[in-house]
Amino acid sequence: MNPDEVSKAFVEHYYSTFDSNRSALANLYQDGSMLTFEGQKIQGSPNIVAKLTSLPFQQCKHHITTVDCQPSGPSGGMLVFVSGNLQISGEQHALKFSQMFHLIPTPQGSFYVLNDIFRLNYA
Amino acid sequence: MNPDEVSKAFVEHYYSTFDSNRSALANLYQDGSMLTFEGQKIQGSPNIVAKLTSLPFQQCKHHITTVDCQPSGPSGGMLVFVSGNLQISGEQHALKFSQMFHLIPTPQGSFYVLNDIFRLNYA
Repeated sequence: MNPDEVSKAFVEHYYSTFDSNRSALANLYQDGSMLTFEGQKIQGSPNIVAKLTSLPFQQCKHHITTVDCQPSGPSGGMLVFVSGNLQISGEQHALKFSQMFHLIPTPQGSFYVLNDIFRLNYA
Repeated sequence: MNPDEVSKAFVEHYYSTFDSNRSALANLYQDGSMLTFEGQKIQGSPNIVAKLTSLPFQQCKHHITTVDCQPSGPSGGMLVFVSGNLQISGEQHALKFSQMFHLIPTPQGSFYVLNDIFRLNYA
């Protein structure tokens, strides 16, 4: 797969996992992974998943609007930049968001998330 | 300066240069630099600056809402994630945007932009 295909496959996997079983996102992060969520800095897969599973809604659905990707340097990493809407169960209006991921290749031929920055786009 | 201070200083410098003298942004990019602008991929400082200076407005003013930053790995790079508004001269409403930069340290002790992804956040 080329980088655009890899990034689109990652994005589909990430948000479908988020929307169906948030705790399974633990597999995508490692100990050195960083999440900045609405300005709050969190490090390490267990802490990141604890944050994501403690968000004050049970059910949600991400709708992706755009996915952009670039190689992050010579070591095979990829930057993935996403914009979309987040529909939370029971809420009338979807929330617009932007999020970026820095994906690092693993020895097994997959990728993990080293960097994750999430922001809601308030109107 | 710590990473948060570096990223804020970079962001202030970048957008004040953009708003006052776009062609001077050439100094912040190198030959391997990549810009994805509203989905269009452009590589290399001359091509990037040609794109930015050819945007169909003469005067604009960026207002920054949020700046998030994370180290991008062990080599001293930094990821900077920005949200804000872009007011174009003669337009009534500001445009919301999100943008990410991957900054790489230079031997001179400064940084250059390896990766730049820009998206307008349409309402």
